[in-house]
Amino acid sequence: MTADRAVVLLSGGLDSTTCLALAQSRGRECFALTVAYGQRHSAELDAARRVAEVHGVAEHRIIDVDFGQFGGSALTDLSIEVPRDRGADAGTVPVTYVPARNTIFLSLALAWAEIVGAGEIWIGVNAVDYSGYPDCRPEYIEAFSRMANLATKVGVEDGAAPQIVTPLVDLSKADIIRLGKGIGVDYSMTLSCYDPDVDGVACGHCEACRLRAAGFAEAGQT
Amino acid sequence: MTADRAVVLLSGGLDSTTCLALAQSRGRECFALTVAYGQRHSAELDAARRVAEVHGVAEHRIIDVDFGQFGGSALTDLSIEVPRDRGADAGTVPVTYVPARNTIFLSLALAWAEIVGAGEIWIGVNAVDYSGYPDCRPEYIEAFSRMANLATKVGVEDGAAPQIVTPLVDLSKADIIRLGKGIGVDYSMTLSCYDPDVDGVACGHCEACRLRAAGFAEAGQT
Repeated sequence: MTADRAVVLLSGGLDSTTCLALAQSRGRECFALTVAYGQRHSAELDAARRVAEVHGVAEHRIIDVDFGQFGGSALTDLSIEVPRDRGADAGTVPVTYVPARNTIFLSLALAWAEIVGAGEIWIGVNAVDYSGYPDCRPEYIEAFSRMANLATKVGVEDGAAPQIVTPLVDLSKADIIRLGKGIGVDYSMTLSCYDPDVDGVACGHCEACRLRAAGFAEAGQT
Repeated sequence: MTADRAVVLLSGGLDSTTCLALAQSRGRECFALTVAYGQRHSAELDAARRVAEVHGVAEHRIIDVDFGQFGGSALTDLSIEVPRDRGADAGTVPVTYVPARNTIFLSLALAWAEIVGAGEIWIGVNAVDYSGYPDCRPEYIEAFSRMANLATKVGVEDGAAPQIVTPLVDLSKADIIRLGKGIGVDYSMTLSCYDPDVDGVACGHCEACRLRAAGFAEAGQT
């Protein structure tokens, strides 16, 4: 296992791009993993490709996993509308929740990390300015880590599965943007929108667009 | 959530077929999930289709997840030879280990279970006559369950994610075969081989074939 080698989950959004830049700024050799899971749009994948290329990652893999076929989320099921101009109801999980998404993402990252000998998996989850998804919380990440130690050959034979690194988990969206700007992230490459138009232009009205805009405003950035 | 509805992971092998038959014999409405992950052969998928059809499952989904592209296992990487006529070395994880396979399988099952409202996920892992895979052990399954409770909307809002059911975990291969025969399983439909020929005929020499043959001999069955 190589301590300075990391698999980084990269959606092409603001958080995962900051996460990648941060891993690189800390000397990690980054293997970027993007999951194509039947999102409403391909603009997200285009953004991930741009970011991986500009950041010169060691390798970028896009893996197709059509769990969008299961439906059940506004992000994968066109019959469910993406909410506009309002936040999620307090204390509830919103319709943009994709069942078990981060668990599927982290499981695939775990497989690749074990194969390339990466000592870390970086994921840009955030439990402050987020949308109320259960699989963004620190207690979830800790439980995944415990499971990963028991799931893998490296966990069993070497006593340690790849560590899950969540550098953004306690930061506000504004803090994330300030951090990224400080290490040279070009956010114009990234896409956060849940429902962009056919040209990949953000809608400006969904929860992800609203959180992004508020973050830039608070950080005093554009 | 529907307590008598279950997602059953179905590879088309002896264990998962017994698991499906058992779930049905206990009154579960079964949603069978097969993962096509870049195995060496498609005979396994053909077996899964046959089993699902004969057993009349509520729904059968085959989901493509090409994590075989990561390589690193004799089951997905043609450059690594499947061992013949010998077991794994004691205390080591064999080359047929597929990194994070059951974690990826269970994560996908978790997503589908949440969407169809299944209260259970059945998986035919076995920690007795198995090949030394870390992700077949009870302590791994327990850790996955704890993680699933924190990962999902049903876990957070209703206090209970789908339960992981492992009815074969403590049984010998012979016990599994006796159990299956007792509830009418036709094992001629199933395929256990790691390396069948192009017509889907088992090699008779790999670890999976050897465990299967020894199990039938011990159970006094053919």
